Amino acid sequence: MVRLETTLPSGMPEEERAALLAAELRRGRELVAAGTIDHIWRLPGRLANVGVWSVADADELHAVLGSLPLWRWMTVGVEALASHPLETGAVDSR
Amino acid sequence: MVRLETTLPSGMPEEERAALLAAELRRGRELVAAGTIDHIWRLPGRLANVGVWSVADADELHAVLGSLPLWRWMTVGVEALASHPLETGAVDSR
Amino acid sequence: MVRLETTLPSGMPEEERAALLAAELRRGRELVAAGTIDHIWRLPGRLANVGVWSVADADELHAVLGSLPLWRWMTVGVEALASHPLETGAVDSR
Amino acid sequence: MVRLETTLPSGMPEEERAALLAAELRRGRELVAAGTIDHIWRLPGRLANVGVWSVADADELHAVLGSLPLWRWMTVGVEALASHPLETGAVDSR
Amino acid sequence: MVRLETTLPSGMPEEERAALLAAELRRGRELVAAGTIDHIWRLPGRLANVGVWSVADADELHAVLGSLPLWRWMTVGVEALASHPLETGAVDSR
Amino acid sequence: MVRLETTLPSGMPEEERAALLAAELRRGRELVAAGTIDHIWRLPGRLANVGVWSVADADELHAVLGSLPLWRWMTVGVEALASHPLETGAVDSR
Amino acid sequence: MVRLETTLPSGMPEEERAALLAAELRRGRELVAAGTIDHIWRLPGRLANVGVWSVADADELHAVLGSLPLWRWMTVGVEALASHPLETGAVDSR
Amino acid sequence: MVRLETTLPSGMPEEERAALLAAELRRGRELVAAGTIDHIWRLPGRLANVGVWSVADADELHAVLGSLPLWRWMTVGVEALASHPLETGAVDSR
Amino acid sequence: MVRLETTLPSGMPEEERAALLAAELRRGRELVAAGTIDHIWRLPGRLANVGVWSVADADELHAVLGSLPLWRWMTVGVEALASHPLETGAVDSR
Amino acid sequence: MVRLETTLPSGMPEEERAALLAAELRRGRELVAAGTIDHIWRLPGRLANVGVWSVADADELHAVLGSLPLWRWMTVGVEALASHPLETGAVDSR
Repeated sequence: MVRLETTLPSGMPEEERAALLAAELRRGRELVAAGTIDHIWRLPGRLANVGVWSVADADELHAVLGSLPLWRWMTVGVEALASHPLETGAVDSR
Repeated sequence: MVRLETTLPSGMPEEERAALLAAELRRGRELVAAGTIDHIWRLPGRLANVGVWSVADADELHAVLGSLPLWRWMTVGVEALASHPLETGAVDSR
Repeated sequence: MVRLETTLPSGMPEEERAALLAAELRRGRELVAAGTIDHIWRLPGRLANVGVWSVADADELHAVLGSLPLWRWMTVGVEALASHPLETGAVDSR
Repeated sequence: MVRLETTLPSGMPEEERAALLAAELRRGRELVAAGTIDHIWRLPGRLANVGVWSVADADELHAVLGSLPLWRWMTVGVEALASHPLETGAVDSR
Repeated sequence: MVRLETTLPSGMPEEERAALLAAELRRGRELVAAGTIDHIWRLPGRLANVGVWSVADADELHAVLGSLPLWRWMTVGVEALASHPLETGAVDSR
Repeated sequence: MVRLETTLPSGMPEEERAALLAAELRRGRELVAAGTIDHIWRLPGRLANVGVWSVADADELHAVLGSLPLWRWMTVGVEALASHPLETGAVDSR
Repeated sequence: MVRLETTLPSGMPEEERAALLAAELRRGRELVAAGTIDHIWRLPGRLANVGVWSVADADELHAVLGSLPLWRWMTVGVEALASHPLETGAVDSR
Repeated sequence: MVRLETTLPSGMPEEERAALLAAELRRGRELVAAGTIDHIWRLPGRLANVGVWSVADADELHAVLGSLPLWRWMTVGVEALASHPLETGAVDSR
Repeated sequence: MVRLETTLPSGMPEEERAALLAAELRRGRELVAAGTIDHIWRLPGRLANVGVWSVADADELHAVLGSLPLWRWMTVGVEALASHPLETGAVDSR
Repeated sequence: MVRLETTLPSGMPEEERAALLAAELRRGRELVAAGTIDHIWRLPGRLANVGVWSVADADELHAVLGSLPLWRWMTVGVEALASHPLETGAVDSR
């Protein structure tokens, strides 16, 4: 699970801001298409999202996150997720 | 998004603990079947999970969470999620 | 429940600051008139408020918050609220 | 604004728990009727609520909160609220 | 009880800084004379203070704090205080 | 400035609890009479207070706090206060 | 990276405590031998450690942590680690 | 620098408590005599202290802290300290 | 006990930075010579230190800290310390 | 264990940024070669790493960290580590 919150300098020219946001959306679509982003939701009222990313390992995650146009203005939180018996049908519910 | 962390008293008899965990799993399956729980993952190493629950409103969420056998031993975190343009195809990516 | 705290750059020209605050108030009145803002209070001594907003879902909340003139300088906190038996008259007080 | 989160000992007999919750609801109704509780909402999934209480001063608030049957098991947060120009129609929107 | 911590931009010209601090002191004296500030102490080593302010309600507190010359650079914390039986002589010491 | 929050075991017999609270009040009166407690207020809704204590040094404060009947169940916060020019009439308002 | 802090009930009989700690050490040796625990250090003065665990995925991590005799008394923190160019010799040092 | 805060169960018999505290003091004297504890101060009003301990390495610190009679009821914080040019007379004041 | 962490603007010219750091060291030496700074250590890797300062009261501490050349860029933490029986030889070890 | 998180001003020219990052990597290689950095990992998605550094004492750590080209833009966290019986083969598993 990846939390991304973007804080753009309030003095950034409008054009630059819009271009960055558009580039971010384009890159995001590529990652959805590639299956890297499984699910993604917005945190209402914030330039922030939380999503479930499928990657081979943390190295790939680092590279992919580093490829985001807004990366330099992001606060990033990464949380490893394990599968849940409710989704896998497993019995042991430790 | 709902975070549930369960802290069972360490002195709880083994049997009671196992029965509660099994009842929790059964109730969870009902909620998955009913479409209330969309996605759920485990936080590795903890008796905790994070999931995406679909409910009509917070009242329904309160009732459903209150129906969980482990509810009394749970720490609950609820975070409203908005849809993301990457999933809806919307253009505006504020 | 929505918490909004605004931090305007201290170097912002007075005029721009006053214009933004006035625009924010006008937009706020529209949202009160539209029933989107049910209740709103100020946190004394701060450029911050806490309010109860009625929206269909988190998507609408995101759009509405994004329409606030001060949005770019805001720290936003959103907390889902369920109704309370004291207001609904319900009996079960889990 | 008053936040109340109740943590009842998990070993508390069911009867005692139910009696306390019922007494709490009765006392709450008295406070709503007396106009002390203006608004109150539940925090979904928790034995917790957030409300707007109208009292003459903090002394009255202390006495009223102390009269709640669940007081001894409560974590209490109090936050002073000022009125907002959106509700009072005032112009100055500092 | 009001906590005020001021963070002035380190690049602020010395003169402007001194003028603001002097204006703040003058305004503070007015508030002490008016009985609004009952007690005030400094937090040693910081441009910060903690004080007990007597106001009719939170609205008055908001207006008074907003009148401080340093308000725009302040972090404000407000905590409602109730009287204590040790000061009122009351018996019940819940 | 001293913050004291008392957490008594919820299972403590009523009598013992009342006796402790009464003893605490008596000890508090002694400290007020001795000038050790200058000012003290309650944090509304909590078994907690904040006060200004005058002591020669931290050793005396430790001994005095240790003499409180409720000491063993207290969470203690101590914050050194310096005098403020608004109270001393000093000019330098660093 | 896995942080494990164990809090055993202070009333636990000495024998039971010693047996648990010994069992924990035995299980730990198995995990070191199996290559699951790459590195592990103690946090001085605490019944806590931080270690680098190599697992296929978070599911395996959950199962392995759940197999620790002290698991029920542990607070667990998991942090995904990516490789660093200083160790892989990669050039890009984003 | 080592912070030790002790939380003894409030139900612990008086005798046991006093014996533990006395044993702790004796062990502390040994450590002062051995030069392991350089400086130690009390945090007023709390069963807590902060001290500067001189040890060869963290292993020795772990063993020494583990030898304290109150260890099992302690929350331990360890912070590595480097020497300061004001004490060593060094010039570089990075 | 006083914690000082300095955050100098990264854009500050090298010369100004070096001059400030040198002035800080000179002032520090004066305070050591005057017995105001008893002990001081560096927090490794940071422009920060923790020290034990001996002052008559918090007013003197405020004045002395305000005299530090780096004061304007400092985050200051002050913690009152009481003497410990291990240093004073006192018997009561509450 | 050392945590380093770098926050470069977003307005820093690209060239300067790249040169700093390259210089940092070169310095890091020297420290790996010198055995000062034992292990180092990246925190995925962040300009941050966590590593195990072997130094004689905190003074050496301070000097070494101060030698890093990115030091001025770093947030530094240092945590002393003791060896673990699982690595040393010791029996006592306090």
